[in-house]
Amino acid sequence: MTIGLDMMGGDFAPLEAVKGLQLYLSEPGAPANIFLLGDEAILRPLLATHMIPEDRIRVVHAPEVIGMHEHPTKALKEKQQSSIAVGFYLLSQGKIDAFISAGNTGAMLVGAHYSLKTIEGVMRPTISTIIPREDGRTGLLLDVGLNADCKPEHLNQFAVLGSLYARHILGIQQPRVGLINIGEEEGKGNILAQASYPLLKENNRIHFIGNVEGRDVLADKADVMVCEGFTGNIILKLAESFYEMTHRHSIRHEYLDRFNFEHYGGTPVLGINKPVIIGHGISRAPAFKNMLKLAAKMVKSDLFDQMQIAFRN
Amino acid sequence: MTIGLDMMGGDFAPLEAVKGLQLYLSEPGAPANIFLLGDEAILRPLLATHMIPEDRIRVVHAPEVIGMHEHPTKALKEKQQSSIAVGFYLLSQGKIDAFISAGNTGAMLVGAHYSLKTIEGVMRPTISTIIPREDGRTGLLLDVGLNADCKPEHLNQFAVLGSLYARHILGIQQPRVGLINIGEEEGKGNILAQASYPLLKENNRIHFIGNVEGRDVLADKADVMVCEGFTGNIILKLAESFYEMTHRHSIRHEYLDRFNFEHYGGTPVLGINKPVIIGHGISRAPAFKNMLKLAAKMVKSDLFDQMQIAFRN
Repeated sequence: MTIGLDMMGGDFAPLEAVKGLQLYLSEPGAPANIFLLGDEAILRPLLATHMIPEDRIRVVHAPEVIGMHEHPTKALKEKQQSSIAVGFYLLSQGKIDAFISAGNTGAMLVGAHYSLKTIEGVMRPTISTIIPREDGRTGLLLDVGLNADCKPEHLNQFAVLGSLYARHILGIQQPRVGLINIGEEEGKGNILAQASYPLLKENNRIHFIGNVEGRDVLADKADVMVCEGFTGNIILKLAESFYEMTHRHSIRHEYLDRFNFEHYGGTPVLGINKPVIIGHGISRAPAFKNMLKLAAKMVKSDLFDQMQIAFRN
Repeated sequence: MTIGLDMMGGDFAPLEAVKGLQLYLSEPGAPANIFLLGDEAILRPLLATHMIPEDRIRVVHAPEVIGMHEHPTKALKEKQQSSIAVGFYLLSQGKIDAFISAGNTGAMLVGAHYSLKTIEGVMRPTISTIIPREDGRTGLLLDVGLNADCKPEHLNQFAVLGSLYARHILGIQQPRVGLINIGEEEGKGNILAQASYPLLKENNRIHFIGNVEGRDVLADKADVMVCEGFTGNIILKLAESFYEMTHRHSIRHEYLDRFNFEHYGGTPVLGINKPVIIGHGISRAPAFKNMLKLAAKMVKSDLFDQMQIAFRN
């Protein structure tokens, strides 16, 4: 198994990416070999300093970098030697089995869209986030920003994609699906939520448990929570800001650590035919390590086969 | 000045309402006299126990109670002797200057809608919430659930209502208005946010500063944050749950206390011609006290005159 890692993506690249790689490779039984995409002249000394074993990696020279604020489509077109462009090329050609970057999110999404295929039957690929929870387990929230406006059918598909991810990656056998809403009973909510409820209720590919409110997001109510990407993105960023706020004010408590989103690595793009993981711009070594672990798990799992089967009909 | 207080509304009524009343009346210079709406036989002994001064209150017998889960319209129609129905009757007749209840939210909204007049020019009344902030100040978020689906014109009006409230009640001279969105730049977001941005930008009754993201909600970026009631309600309930979660896990810190929403009392309905404040079902004494203070401040302020002037043209 070979995973491509963008060494130039994120606010603390390439140093934290190298450190994350070191962490990953030092774990016993870590299955993947890694293709490192970036500027060879910058990477080589760093790899030597951190004693990265040569037999587990290969440096693929990609001298250009797409900046965090560049226009995604334009940058991908003009910088074909960038780490992101090279990563998607290798992935589309089957030279790597998964691709990870903490770089320009827009460029990652555009790259995934144009270089890879959407799974047949999927209307809209989606991005999700792991939601830390009070009970110590994790939930999945989707969409978190790729699809700002949605139709009920989209939310219904997100529920299937999220359930498959929860089962095959998070290890939850019968994931409970909740619809993010502003009331508990059926019939509550905005037009989208009202129209989505009956579709979810009748969908026999998922285990729908009804509406979940804002107060339930961090609680143990549903394993997979679906909404359009506008609400999902606001939830994600607000939840992230809680931990950062307590951290800034030196409020330390073991319990709060589970709300450190860095522990959860990046967010996979779901609905496309290969594993692509987008890291947070502020990713540090543990996030890079966790993204490598997640990518390896996705490659080894049945997830992609199961997604294809689910949407075939 | 006379404020009507529903003594039967909320999970801990009437005891916590009586205690809150006691707290309010014991503060020096508290300007309002209070009409207490509820079952006289239940209230009298409680008032005596808590030594509520007879000259500051009047008990208005309202023997019926609208339960927290009753259907609002049906309950209001059938229970005309309920504390909520009587409260709105007194308010509409000018016998009281403001009305407060921590009871059935739906019944409060229906009552406000049918008993009172919407300010001329206001398309949709709205409910807001005070948002505690990292810098120790408070922001205002609206709508938080009354209008689950909105048009850009509604958000534009919420911005004006929120700005007037921030100026005349929160004491912020030039409130900065932010549009809740999923990106910083103009053009980001869902269709509603994209269409609302130019309206807000061109609105010379407000001081618009652009988009605010989920991570900015608790930060010192904007004083008034506008969105449709779906997103707003999710934000409110998620933010409330964060404090409750730290509290449950015995994580105590002075800084976290400002996220105890109870300190902020209830949420006023804006866009109608009289002060109506809806309390949280879990309101305890400090919340009741704060709602009384807020109601008195609203009655004394220029808010209602200024709202009428703002929407006249």
